[in-house]
Amino acid sequence: MTDPDAVLPSWRPGPTRDALLAFLDASAGVPLEARVACFDNDGTLWCERPSYVQLDFFLDTLQAAVRDDPAVAQQPEFAALLSGDRAAVAEVGLERIALALTGLYAGLSPEVFAARVREFMASATHAALDRPLRTTTYVPMLELLAELRRRDFTVGVVTGGGTEFVRAISQELYGVPPEVVVGSLVDYDYVPAGADGSGPGLVRAARIVGVANEGTAKVTHIQTQLGRRPILAAGNSGGDRAMLEWAAAGDGPTLALLVDHDDDVREFAYVGTAETFAEPEPITAVAARSGWVVASMVRDWEVVFAPPGGAPAG
Amino acid sequence: MTDPDAVLPSWRPGPTRDALLAFLDASAGVPLEARVACFDNDGTLWCERPSYVQLDFFLDTLQAAVRDDPAVAQQPEFAALLSGDRAAVAEVGLERIALALTGLYAGLSPEVFAARVREFMASATHAALDRPLRTTTYVPMLELLAELRRRDFTVGVVTGGGTEFVRAISQELYGVPPEVVVGSLVDYDYVPAGADGSGPGLVRAARIVGVANEGTAKVTHIQTQLGRRPILAAGNSGGDRAMLEWAAAGDGPTLALLVDHDDDVREFAYVGTAETFAEPEPITAVAARSGWVVASMVRDWEVVFAPPGGAPAG
Repeated sequence: MTDPDAVLPSWRPGPTRDALLAFLDASAGVPLEARVACFDNDGTLWCERPSYVQLDFFLDTLQAAVRDDPAVAQQPEFAALLSGDRAAVAEVGLERIALALTGLYAGLSPEVFAARVREFMASATHAALDRPLRTTTYVPMLELLAELRRRDFTVGVVTGGGTEFVRAISQELYGVPPEVVVGSLVDYDYVPAGADGSGPGLVRAARIVGVANEGTAKVTHIQTQLGRRPILAAGNSGGDRAMLEWAAAGDGPTLALLVDHDDDVREFAYVGTAETFAEPEPITAVAARSGWVVASMVRDWEVVFAPPGGAPAG
Repeated sequence: MTDPDAVLPSWRPGPTRDALLAFLDASAGVPLEARVACFDNDGTLWCERPSYVQLDFFLDTLQAAVRDDPAVAQQPEFAALLSGDRAAVAEVGLERIALALTGLYAGLSPEVFAARVREFMASATHAALDRPLRTTTYVPMLELLAELRRRDFTVGVVTGGGTEFVRAISQELYGVPPEVVVGSLVDYDYVPAGADGSGPGLVRAARIVGVANEGTAKVTHIQTQLGRRPILAAGNSGGDRAMLEWAAAGDGPTLALLVDHDDDVREFAYVGTAETFAEPEPITAVAARSGWVVASMVRDWEVVFAPPGGAPAG
């Protein structure tokens, strides 16, 4: 039996920690190739309120673009976003806005884009939490990632956001290499070798490959990217529901884990909805009905974020 | 300096082995995250003559389908293939035939498809070489894969064939897990949970995601699947040219390796062409002009296949 204090020290004793430890123990009997765990990113591994970190990055780039050319701010997608008006954003649609924002990086090589992400993350701060954005990862979840890896799990991050954005920081933040990041994929254009002796390369296009990585697309994309069905899936929103149901319905010991944002003192209190219903249902209600393990931030987490100056666990 | 006999025992002394060893030594100075190596599969890691192994698998399935329903043989794509007439196959087009063959597995879950591949590979034999198909891997290349892994490279297989076909056997044959197999990707349909209590799942569709994994698509797909540019790429045909050029043009020590099928005694003698030219050029001519390292099977390989009864290296 696993010693709980040794492996998940930031998880408080109780039914949730017991359920995690029971799963970890049971997974010892699972063949190596089936030990696959998938974690949503925004709101599951790090803070997503008041705005997605990637949106902060996009806005930073957009503001620089507007400084260079004020006319950029008149593009309808950007005008809606810059207005800060939720109704205006909803009217244009977040998907259309995301595609327009992706266009800001069109023509960049993958390496230059990754460098820009890392540069932003090195200095950006979370206004409300008064800490660097790169330290808004959840310590109890980092402990769970590390413990799964110690048990020879392949641990993937499955994000509704951009694959390449998360890949630029996933090794440093989570110890997760780029090939096991599953997200919304930007497409690339191939650039042949130039007459000037420059080699062939790739540049970002203003296109997404297929569809955004939410809902049932997370299931399809995990298969196409990772080639395996996870026995553990963790999420916090309606966009994670299909992934959690899929993992839970697999063979052998499985675990569907929902992070419940019920802590308005240390983080933000809110409940996602499972929009796949005709009538949106709180994701916590889906969890209760489905027998998922629910991690209450108030009840189950001794620590939420690393202390100031502390390095995130790898 | 690396001891050549310890690490690449099946490679004969000479300029080719020296070039591989020099690259291995130089790679010790490359940051871990940049140590990525990509190998084509057919004709680079295993034998592709007289026919692709995956085509043998397809044909096995097709023949079973025809036994169940002789009308299947009348479908134009299958009629061309079953005729064994190269001109008839060329007229219909290999891509259209491949898509029709993919349709034979539509509706299967990923797990059932993988089991069928493994079942086939467990017993199928190579008629001309008189050995199990699963032992037609090249021993010198397996040694190179193993040595790269010992040096903390992420080693991927980049195949023109089906991703899921190769994933079903890549761990056993090459020690390569499914998430680092890059190929032509079948799409999936999501199947919701059933009223009978069955869980949600995925079934294969008769569709390919994007385009087949050849030529410049190999470059794009390596980026989208692996998220990194390789510093070593190995191939044997015109379809690998773009991948080798891309790797060779990267920063730091790089290696483009071409397997030259010049051994008609132990294997098959043939030269692929780089079809991206208006006038197809032999890939060996491209290699000579580009300064790639060429592995001559006659000159450089002491052993081609494992001795009968020997297990392939992992």
